Amino acid sequence: MSLIVLKFGGTSVGSIKKINYVAKIIKKHHHKKNKLIVVSSAMSGVTNDLIKKSKQISKNFDKFEYDVLLSSGEQIACALLSGALLKIGLKSRSWLSWQIPIITKGDHKSSRIISINKKEILKYVNSGGIPIITGFQGISNNRRITTLGRGGSDATAISIAKFFSADDCFIYTDVSGVYTTDPKLNSKAKKIKKISYEEMLEMASLGAKIMQPISLQDAMINDIDINVRSTFINSNGTKISNNQQLFNKNPITGIAFTKNEAKITLIGVMDRPGTAASIFKPLADNQINVDMVVQTSSPDGGQTDITFTIIKDDIKNCIRILKENKKISYKKIIHDDKVSKVSIVGAGMIATPGVTYRMFKALAKKKINITVISTSEIKISVLINQKNIKKAIRVLHKEFDLD
Amino acid sequence: MSLIVLKFGGTSVGSIKKINYVAKIIKKHHHKKNKLIVVSSAMSGVTNDLIKKSKQISKNFDKFEYDVLLSSGEQIACALLSGALLKIGLKSRSWLSWQIPIITKGDHKSSRIISINKKEILKYVNSGGIPIITGFQGISNNRRITTLGRGGSDATAISIAKFFSADDCFIYTDVSGVYTTDPKLNSKAKKIKKISYEEMLEMASLGAKIMQPISLQDAMINDIDINVRSTFINSNGTKISNNQQLFNKNPITGIAFTKNEAKITLIGVMDRPGTAASIFKPLADNQINVDMVVQTSSPDGGQTDITFTIIKDDIKNCIRILKENKKISYKKIIHDDKVSKVSIVGAGMIATPGVTYRMFKALAKKKINITVISTSEIKISVLINQKNIKKAIRVLHKEFDLD
Repeated sequence: MSLIVLKFGGTSVGSIKKINYVAKIIKKHHHKKNKLIVVSSAMSGVTNDLIKKSKQISKNFDKFEYDVLLSSGEQIACALLSGALLKIGLKSRSWLSWQIPIITKGDHKSSRIISINKKEILKYVNSGGIPIITGFQGISNNRRITTLGRGGSDATAISIAKFFSADDCFIYTDVSGVYTTDPKLNSKAKKIKKISYEEMLEMASLGAKIMQPISLQDAMINDIDINVRSTFINSNGTKISNNQQLFNKNPITGIAFTKNEAKITLIGVMDRPGTAASIFKPLADNQINVDMVVQTSSPDGGQTDITFTIIKDDIKNCIRILKENKKISYKKIIHDDKVSKVSIVGAGMIATPGVTYRMFKALAKKKINITVISTSEIKISVLINQKNIKKAIRVLHKEFDLD
Repeated sequence: MSLIVLKFGGTSVGSIKKINYVAKIIKKHHHKKNKLIVVSSAMSGVTNDLIKKSKQISKNFDKFEYDVLLSSGEQIACALLSGALLKIGLKSRSWLSWQIPIITKGDHKSSRIISINKKEILKYVNSGGIPIITGFQGISNNRRITTLGRGGSDATAISIAKFFSADDCFIYTDVSGVYTTDPKLNSKAKKIKKISYEEMLEMASLGAKIMQPISLQDAMINDIDINVRSTFINSNGTKISNNQQLFNKNPITGIAFTKNEAKITLIGVMDRPGTAASIFKPLADNQINVDMVVQTSSPDGGQTDITFTIIKDDIKNCIRILKENKKISYKKIIHDDKVSKVSIVGAGMIATPGVTYRMFKALAKKKINITVISTSEIKISVLINQKNIKKAIRVLHKEFDLD
């Protein structure tokens, strides 16, 4: 008998009709003689509505009360889902995080689960019951409600899989799996059957729609296989697991991209040790995340240009901070918010030489200019003009045999 | 320094704007150097919406999960109200019933509070903090969430006043107090400044709009004075307390009435011991509440007519049960759902002879026919044709000097 964790996202339990449908999915898993532990998110829309209410009271709404407020969303969903299971003849009850308890550490609004008391849940599961556990939350050592930040229900599911040594973990969501690229931008995008955690992490935005990086990392460290499935389409979805062997014969597993990037260039920076640190420290202090960085070496050894990318929303703030920065000198700041980052991702590229070259050549053939390049072990990213994004994805998807 | 319990009903916290307004009321009480404990209901509409959701899943939605579901409403209101107090510079936090804990006994959906752990709340109050406690709920001995039934937030407030030996208890609501009769039916209705628990209980529907009878009884038994006030109109409201001395020089304090009554008459019932029991037992078994009962003595000793009133909604069910009842015999059942019960209520009538006569005379003068009469120590009720209700209230209001 296997112990299986099932997690349902907000859209999966977004209406009473959907909750009844989810109850049927759970029943199917139950009929396969599995022991089940279910984690539910809040019904879609509920959390945002609660956040809106808190903001109407104060832009700086108290973080303790924020957690009390938001945690009610999962409480509602779990009670309804449990009621739906009871109605179709299954033994079930909701478990709120304080009833288990799920203990968290760290700051409110972004706590981390550090322990889960297994005793009562195991007893219940062993008696044939299906516990429906509130995702996204826990309690602190002094018994106040905490929440785990956006995507926190995934974190709950992974933690439960970890603490209970579950045999399998299903993440039911509103997409049917991870695709080689966004089907909206390339109709030839295909569902990926198997992907490694590392690849998922590098898939960035494409992957993050499905799971938050922090939960993925937690699953990776604890070697928990994850099955991503659609709640509404009956198909196998994508399996995420540790990359013991290469899943794909292709060097590239998928093509990711961003649309909300902006490029900033400091022209004529003094080229001496510590300059980069002086530029980036105040940005980090102000929560501005710098992604790609390129420094062109100065031919005369005196001055250089530094280009980096940030999220588009941060442009104004970033330029202000650069201008107020007394520790650096430069001739000019230029910026461009019409850029996109396109990345090819694949664990296979480690063992396949020439991937970088093939990427650049394919883009060059289509006359797509690359302004910034950054690479990791299993990912190559280039910054291109936003207008070329669709063309770039299409040519790369074809080049790396993903069509 | 006084310890004061403040309870806010659903309409009082029905929007963010109202919650901010309630925060200001709390601040005023705080500025009078009082120690405060606040109880909040769910925002108006929230509980009904949750009930609706549960019914969409099942007409017999599990009662355990029902309580988990509904309790989220007060959790939301308390977090928001506490956040609003923090914003205006007061020390405050929400307390959920499991955090205190508030322990209940009895069935789910209609539990009773049996104990409240005072330790942490007292410590918090003594440190200058204002605890915002979830009304309407508690936890059972096995740590599951329970609710107290409709009007349960009043029960929470009264229990807190009792266990903490509070000096005063304010029930903030959407009406400004108890009136001599419904101002909608008689423009001469006046707010009652002071009323005894007994009178409030007898005021039935008029009083029940403000507090559930069970909470009133609890307050009466524990000698807790209650101040009913409007959240939105700054006035003194009505004080409910034990009737040590007569508050009013008038024998009558107020005039109550019902609109949803129906009268049923069994004609030609065999007049022998046990007949009444045989009629009413199956009704009680089917949750049909019988209010007024009249049996006309049979002149020939053989047969009699029995008339009683029930809630209009129960007519069909009641007649079916009577017809299926093999233990009774009668000639005919007749019923009338165009009736109303009008009651004059006042502790003063105990010491004032002739009240009954004055009531009947006043109604007779206006040619209002009485079909059933029932009396208690401090109340006289008559059943009349519904079309006469406004006229009856007007004449009685004048007769007993309430205008």
